[in-house]
Amino acid sequence: MSTFEYETEIQVRFRDVDAMHHVNNAVYATYLEQARVDYYADVLGVGLDGIDTVLVNLEIDYRSQIELDDPVTVAMGVRDIGKSSVTMGYEVRVGDRVAATAETVQVYVDPDGDGSRPLPADWVDRMEAYRA
Amino acid sequence: MSTFEYETEIQVRFRDVDAMHHVNNAVYATYLEQARVDYYADVLGVGLDGIDTVLVNLEIDYRSQIELDDPVTVAMGVRDIGKSSVTMGYEVRVGDRVAATAETVQVYVDPDGDGSRPLPADWVDRMEAYRA
Amino acid sequence: MSTFEYETEIQVRFRDVDAMHHVNNAVYATYLEQARVDYYADVLGVGLDGIDTVLVNLEIDYRSQIELDDPVTVAMGVRDIGKSSVTMGYEVRVGDRVAATAETVQVYVDPDGDGSRPLPADWVDRMEAYRA
Amino acid sequence: MSTFEYETEIQVRFRDVDAMHHVNNAVYATYLEQARVDYYADVLGVGLDGIDTVLVNLEIDYRSQIELDDPVTVAMGVRDIGKSSVTMGYEVRVGDRVAATAETVQVYVDPDGDGSRPLPADWVDRMEAYRA
Repeated sequence: MSTFEYETEIQVRFRDVDAMHHVNNAVYATYLEQARVDYYADVLGVGLDGIDTVLVNLEIDYRSQIELDDPVTVAMGVRDIGKSSVTMGYEVRVGDRVAATAETVQVYVDPDGDGSRPLPADWVDRMEAYRA
Repeated sequence: MSTFEYETEIQVRFRDVDAMHHVNNAVYATYLEQARVDYYADVLGVGLDGIDTVLVNLEIDYRSQIELDDPVTVAMGVRDIGKSSVTMGYEVRVGDRVAATAETVQVYVDPDGDGSRPLPADWVDRMEAYRA
Repeated sequence: MSTFEYETEIQVRFRDVDAMHHVNNAVYATYLEQARVDYYADVLGVGLDGIDTVLVNLEIDYRSQIELDDPVTVAMGVRDIGKSSVTMGYEVRVGDRVAATAETVQVYVDPDGDGSRPLPADWVDRMEAYRA
Repeated sequence: MSTFEYETEIQVRFRDVDAMHHVNNAVYATYLEQARVDYYADVLGVGLDGIDTVLVNLEIDYRSQIELDDPVTVAMGVRDIGKSSVTMGYEVRVGDRVAATAETVQVYVDPDGDGSRPLPADWVDRMEAYRA
């Protein structure tokens, strides 16, 4: 397993499981999103109303299946901080097993406009301090 | 709050929240389902493959909204055990606040057939012992 | 089948189906919601931003299973119009087969406040005109 | 817009929209999945029980937001056929606008075992004939 600076636990639901009896592929994206929301709250101190970022890229490598009773943790960390974007890496884990690795790119935007804008300086500070 | 013999905690997800900024009404049904699945595992010792019941009736009274950061517990209990059906009552709670009350009726069926069949005797024993 | 004044078609998704190989019980509530949203748009001329109602009660009678390839229609109609609430009836259909019947009660609320308020007069007019 | 050999229409649901008032990022993965399921049924003649493939990689480039009333089409096509895997490309469209592009890699597996196995010859024939 890789090293990531932040971890959050995910409760697998019966509704996450599809007809193949494993957690559905799209639900992995929901697990990553939940980890991001928890990271925003815990590290950046930002709630639902302050998440003015949009996801522009998502890539998931599915390594192994997740079942209903599996204890799932998402480990994540900031890989790169750009002027107005953040790249995050993820590992979806079931105990010591890696169920998936993933990467996302988010862009900070003006909620009332169309364009991107520079990341808030205190976000960058907090992300870097937390990473160190 | 009413008295119920079983409780399970639910992790509210960002994906549960809809455009109205509250947990979506259909997601309450998923919370109830998760409570049932946990009850089946903990009280009846039955996993995903042994849940040979179908839901025939669901009623939810929505009392108050649930938000992303709310700590949700579903309290539930068996209200009535029939020959081949079980009626369960639920209270969806956010701390001391009741967000919803609900009731479900499930029928025990033959997984390879169409009809209902008597509840397994050991299920009835376990439900009654747990309730007492 | 009963008579209802409004119908909408639902596209069943692979993601709607659960480990039991049928459309999940909570997804029926999503189908009803979609029918309501379509009704609001088509009959009341109200979009996402104008749906200032909250669901206070939902009851579903599940009659038969829905599978991935099933062509689903939700038929619905207004059963009762109160001062600030609307009761709607539903039939979830797969061709000529009734998969579920349902009823909801919605209350019209002040989006910036806590309480209910009288239904807009033009909503009542449109609902009654459409029903007739 | 790119050229793809297969298209399917997607019905956007109220439940697909999240607190940001746009279709949630994970739901795009569900739209792609629905397109694959439709392709399997229409091109390969394979139903739910015959989809013995697992998704091993998913990448989505989000280009623009999707709203509740948007008419969504997923265009897709086979990009590469390996011995036991298939790479598919996708374009999620709202009218003439590209909302996302995506790519998936699926591996054909033994449903009762762990390993991959060669793609059925008639699947390869049908995919190639449909592409041509």
